[in-house]
Amino acid sequence: MRCEVVAVGTELLLGQIVDTNSSWIGEQLALAGIDSLFQTKVGDNFGRIADTLRAALDRSDAVVVCGGLGPTQDDITRDVIASVMGVELVHDDDIEARIRYMFGSRARTMSVNNLRQAQVPLGATTIAQMPGTAPGLVCPMPEGPYEGKVIYAVPGVPSEMREMVAGTVIPDLKRRSGVTSVIKSRTLRTWGQSESGLAEMLEGEIERLDAEPSATIAFLASGIEGIKVRLTAKAATEAECDERLAAEEAIVRDIIGDIVFGVDDETMEHAVVALLAERGLTLAVAESVTGGLIGSRITNVPGASKVFRGGVVAYASEVKFEVLDVPEGPVVTEEAAMAMADGVRRRLGADVGLAVTGVAGPDPQEGLPPGTVFFGLALGDTLEARPVRMPGDRERIRTFSTIGLLDWLRRRLLALD
Amino acid sequence: MRCEVVAVGTELLLGQIVDTNSSWIGEQLALAGIDSLFQTKVGDNFGRIADTLRAALDRSDAVVVCGGLGPTQDDITRDVIASVMGVELVHDDDIEARIRYMFGSRARTMSVNNLRQAQVPLGATTIAQMPGTAPGLVCPMPEGPYEGKVIYAVPGVPSEMREMVAGTVIPDLKRRSGVTSVIKSRTLRTWGQSESGLAEMLEGEIERLDAEPSATIAFLASGIEGIKVRLTAKAATEAECDERLAAEEAIVRDIIGDIVFGVDDETMEHAVVALLAERGLTLAVAESVTGGLIGSRITNVPGASKVFRGGVVAYASEVKFEVLDVPEGPVVTEEAAMAMADGVRRRLGADVGLAVTGVAGPDPQEGLPPGTVFFGLALGDTLEARPVRMPGDRERIRTFSTIGLLDWLRRRLLALD
Repeated sequence: MRCEVVAVGTELLLGQIVDTNSSWIGEQLALAGIDSLFQTKVGDNFGRIADTLRAALDRSDAVVVCGGLGPTQDDITRDVIASVMGVELVHDDDIEARIRYMFGSRARTMSVNNLRQAQVPLGATTIAQMPGTAPGLVCPMPEGPYEGKVIYAVPGVPSEMREMVAGTVIPDLKRRSGVTSVIKSRTLRTWGQSESGLAEMLEGEIERLDAEPSATIAFLASGIEGIKVRLTAKAATEAECDERLAAEEAIVRDIIGDIVFGVDDETMEHAVVALLAERGLTLAVAESVTGGLIGSRITNVPGASKVFRGGVVAYASEVKFEVLDVPEGPVVTEEAAMAMADGVRRRLGADVGLAVTGVAGPDPQEGLPPGTVFFGLALGDTLEARPVRMPGDRERIRTFSTIGLLDWLRRRLLALD
Repeated sequence: MRCEVVAVGTELLLGQIVDTNSSWIGEQLALAGIDSLFQTKVGDNFGRIADTLRAALDRSDAVVVCGGLGPTQDDITRDVIASVMGVELVHDDDIEARIRYMFGSRARTMSVNNLRQAQVPLGATTIAQMPGTAPGLVCPMPEGPYEGKVIYAVPGVPSEMREMVAGTVIPDLKRRSGVTSVIKSRTLRTWGQSESGLAEMLEGEIERLDAEPSATIAFLASGIEGIKVRLTAKAATEAECDERLAAEEAIVRDIIGDIVFGVDDETMEHAVVALLAERGLTLAVAESVTGGLIGSRITNVPGASKVFRGGVVAYASEVKFEVLDVPEGPVVTEEAAMAMADGVRRRLGADVGLAVTGVAGPDPQEGLPPGTVFFGLALGDTLEARPVRMPGDRERIRTFSTIGLLDWLRRRLLALD
């Protein structure tokens, strides 16, 4: 069973609105085990919407068309569907009554235009869920090239669309397709390996899965936040999916090891805060090049206050000397990084001190090029530093520094086991 | 001239990533006066990508295909384009050198897979901008049904895609299309007014422009970052556009006044850093609820070091007492906010002290509900505080606090004139 998604609206093409509806519908289709091979955005143009629907029906068994069901003149999805079905639009008294009731209950006056929303292609049925004034439609294709196929029309308003898709479209599609299988995904988030490096590490496992497909592995570069390894399983039941995902996750973790810092939505800062809490340790951070980015990310984690004391943003060198007792002299060095970590830990009374100093650019500093960064860590009796070379522009250098430093702490904390 | 956008990636169809690239590209095409009538998402499947590209070339003069240029086996955009062009992939030594250099400069080992990225369809040229390891491609269609048409291939990583589209794709499309009329936009960024409030203020001017259309005004809500007022002008020359935009900007600024904090990409922190530099003042920040967010945003501005001394992230109350000399007692008060601003200014030897303390939630603190926030400002001889109620969740409260506090400083600095 294949179902395409068509999003209607010139504002989508102009980039005035980002089409999040198609993504959400695609996710629901995937979870229902229904393939969605194409998603199309098209403007409010009769001919082009018609062409898009026909192309979709040529390739697939069903189409969810989203948007263009409003009361205004450029809301023409109803009319286009009728023409693709080769039928008339007929007035639906029941919908008119529901629309009138809506307006009544909202104490708004109904315009004549709103009655256009009571027009329905002959043979179509309306979707029971109707949170707004736009009725959704189930349009089975009549005798002809598309017989047996179906178009679902839902409004572009996300909340209305979601209620109709979840309440009627997905159940109807599952019934038509007789699909019983479920598809689920789990994402392992990694730091410290390139996408191609991961691909090589997992080459054997991927080949094994090609032979006996209990799950699939895909890589997603998530910009500066590392590489995601996505595991996907298809099975008869949700429980069986979870089982396969758990088994596959264990295998993959065995292969790529502790470069996995989180699962699905877990960020690096979530991982670090959780590890500190487990070990009953408090943290203080001394930031130069990152300017507060590390603290802001840590404190974005609910419950961070249990482990995070605070930090010193020592941007000017004098602040490093005066507030953190860094010895006067060059401040982009391993020594300075260690002194900052130790100083902030003592000054703020924390168990762990973390520090970063470096050159974000655009200009060099102390004769060092942008991207020259030193990490400092004060943990227990150990005081250590680590030099790093960061790529890219100011923002990339700052973000790489933040995640890289937190990952270093994460590995040190894991080693405490 | 018509240009379609094709986004490649199974994760887009599955809704694991929202395709924001197509929207951004669509906006750039519109601003360049180039029609974009269809945008399609397709998975990592050779046949379906090829069909999609052919359908797009049948309907339009150019296609921007986004994604699938990575080093892994499922990155097949290069291969598909070659087959649509009916040519071979050839190895490009120059790109290999650039990729090797990238890895060298990042001290990461390059895998053999990365060399796939040096494969280029015969007759294609590479895009000069190459911020990552994925080269962009300009692929003119050879003799045949699509002769004279062109495919542009750019990576799915937004930052890389944007640099290539702005730097090469749009200029090349304009040259090919011979578009003479120029469309330009200027965005005035505002803080402190609702969209409907702005619409009311500008109602008269918008009516005037309907009568004599020298420019258009549109409102874009940019989430937590305020409301954008976008001015757009279409004219024969760029100079004429700039003239009209400058004239319209003056009129609009007269009407809405100093709620405009920046133009186009200027952020609130840019505005504040510029004002401080003009007045020769240095800044120190004491952050509690924002955890370093204010410092991180200020230091994201190149040249911030001229005005920003640093800050203290006083997340735990003891840090407020011990490091900032805040009197022991409740810390979510006007008094605490003022003491923090004064303390950080003195401690870090700055001219201006800014402070924020409050409750980000999810739990109440000192009996106060999440969203209770106090700003503190130490400027010259004045020490003042301001209570604020912030809406929304933890992240919104933190971001609203950051921008709200910076905007307060901005207004105070403007008043110094």
